[in-house]
Amino acid sequence: MGIEPEFIGYMAAFCTTISFLPQAYLTLKTRDAESLSLGMYSTFTLGVLLWLLYGLLIEDKAIVFANVITFVLSATILIFKIYHTLTRAK
Amino acid sequence: MGIEPEFIGYMAAFCTTISFLPQAYLTLKTRDAESLSLGMYSTFTLGVLLWLLYGLLIEDKAIVFANVITFVLSATILIFKIYHTLTRAK
Repeated sequence: MGIEPEFIGYMAAFCTTISFLPQAYLTLKTRDAESLSLGMYSTFTLGVLLWLLYGLLIEDKAIVFANVITFVLSATILIFKIYHTLTRAK
Repeated sequence: MGIEPEFIGYMAAFCTTISFLPQAYLTLKTRDAESLSLGMYSTFTLGVLLWLLYGLLIEDKAIVFANVITFVLSATILIFKIYHTLTRAK
């Protein structure tokens, strides 16, 4: 086949990253994270960080690229969620 | 370091897969997919399928393992969503 694995990797990265964007956009726009699960976002963000570390260790650009973007989005949502949880607890 | 990249990969796979389980469980249990976005799930499922293909092409077990499980979960949710959309349209 003429299609490079790297191209498939970037296509995959593009799809999974853009499918995550609407949630990130909504959370950043409304600054509301009440209906999001803290447990789920903590686990997901940790998972994305580990994928990023894995991509760096095996020197795979598509994995690093996808997970840097997703980590920034996911960590931003998680910080909003933690801030929201802490301020409500007061 | 004593930690193998493969171990990091499986840890990453574990975290991102289990963070996806609550949604899959809820959808399968309630058989309700009304509040899910068809566009988001289509794109995400395609992305996971491409990651799976990428994992097979670069022969990376952690990527294949993670994406086989996530693809089954995501495709199941997507099928419920499509079925729901079609039956409502009648």
